[in-house]
Amino acid sequence: MNYTLYIGNKNYSTWSMRPWVVMRYFDIPFNEKLVKFDSFNDDSLFKKTMFSVSKYGTVPILIDEDLVISDSLAICEYLAEKHCDLALWPSDPQERAIARSLVAKMHSGFQAIRTYLPMNIEAEFPQIGQIILRDHLEVKKEIIFLDDLLSSLLTSKQSNCDYLFGDFSIADGFYAPLCLRLKNYHIATSPILNNYIDTICNTKGIKDWINDALQEKSFVAMDEPYRLHR
Amino acid sequence: MNYTLYIGNKNYSTWSMRPWVVMRYFDIPFNEKLVKFDSFNDDSLFKKTMFSVSKYGTVPILIDEDLVISDSLAICEYLAEKHCDLALWPSDPQERAIARSLVAKMHSGFQAIRTYLPMNIEAEFPQIGQIILRDHLEVKKEIIFLDDLLSSLLTSKQSNCDYLFGDFSIADGFYAPLCLRLKNYHIATSPILNNYIDTICNTKGIKDWINDALQEKSFVAMDEPYRLHR
Repeated sequence: MNYTLYIGNKNYSTWSMRPWVVMRYFDIPFNEKLVKFDSFNDDSLFKKTMFSVSKYGTVPILIDEDLVISDSLAICEYLAEKHCDLALWPSDPQERAIARSLVAKMHSGFQAIRTYLPMNIEAEFPQIGQIILRDHLEVKKEIIFLDDLLSSLLTSKQSNCDYLFGDFSIADGFYAPLCLRLKNYHIATSPILNNYIDTICNTKGIKDWINDALQEKSFVAMDEPYRLHR
Repeated sequence: MNYTLYIGNKNYSTWSMRPWVVMRYFDIPFNEKLVKFDSFNDDSLFKKTMFSVSKYGTVPILIDEDLVISDSLAICEYLAEKHCDLALWPSDPQERAIARSLVAKMHSGFQAIRTYLPMNIEAEFPQIGQIILRDHLEVKKEIIFLDDLLSSLLTSKQSNCDYLFGDFSIADGFYAPLCLRLKNYHIATSPILNNYIDTICNTKGIKDWINDALQEKSFVAMDEPYRLHR
């Protein structure tokens, strides 16, 4: 086993964060290759580098010997199969199906949150958060939906579990970047979701990602709709 | 086994089409519940009905006894696990990983094609297709990318296989709606992709979906940016 994971800037790249934190949480060793964002134009250094790695030209990419796997979800599914002893997905088939629905929603949904609340781990935007909520009803609607969705999962457990399906799983990895968005824009959420966000921020692997992000010195304009500099 | 699959209009609903054609191809029996689109406003009949079925309020939804599974990909993953004898995914782990990358791309990507070339099985828009290609560079770029991606898979097989990974799989189900978009807007593609589109249109299950779509009489304004009526 000799994995290489290509990722973008830790401060900004939500898609990269997902498989990275899952691999770290489950102690799956890998070499990290961080390709810094400059722009997403075809002639950017980022795109040139990533197109030399795969046709998709995106991050994350997992390399396992000759195999090149694109996409955060496809990578996690591959790892879940390959490390079936680790239970990357919930082991109960019904819970696993519900976890996959949740992850699929993150994979293709929450478009308004994505657009208006880009992840920016080292920044705090309390005022911007309030303005976005005031001016963009669809962001508010998505947050209400999200809060209800996660809270109902977190309270449905019999025991006092911290994660969405009891033990940490791919689902938590997928929702971790969203937790950081809510936190950094100071979006008010239910006590249950607040508590979950705290748990996520203190989770093995996720803590490392956050610390690494805080130490990055890059400022990437395309990911900074709300600042001119750090 | 007693599946119920909720879907939207066959003429328009690409997301519904994916698991439906997969289940039909693999002879997995199910009850179909077609919930007609009126609008996606919260007070629409469609949304009210679908919110009574699941929190997500979307189609497709698969019901298996007490279990309610949202999302085309999560549904297909569930079926692939439950019917592991049927090989819904390619059986080789490496091919399966590549198939999942491809499906993930369809799940969250091709945003320009989605926006400008909505599926409309019973209509033909040759002129609109040309105008879109002329005016929207991002559509053109996505089609070039797509053609290259699918063609390289289709030519990499040793034998003369018709489908993306040899035998029909979830990946073909996911790309079937896109084939119909290309066909109905008369988008020029490579001979290899042309051939694949023909194969897809004549595939068991997909043929049935197309026939059903042609017999629908609904005209849904939100899905008809290019017509006032049928």
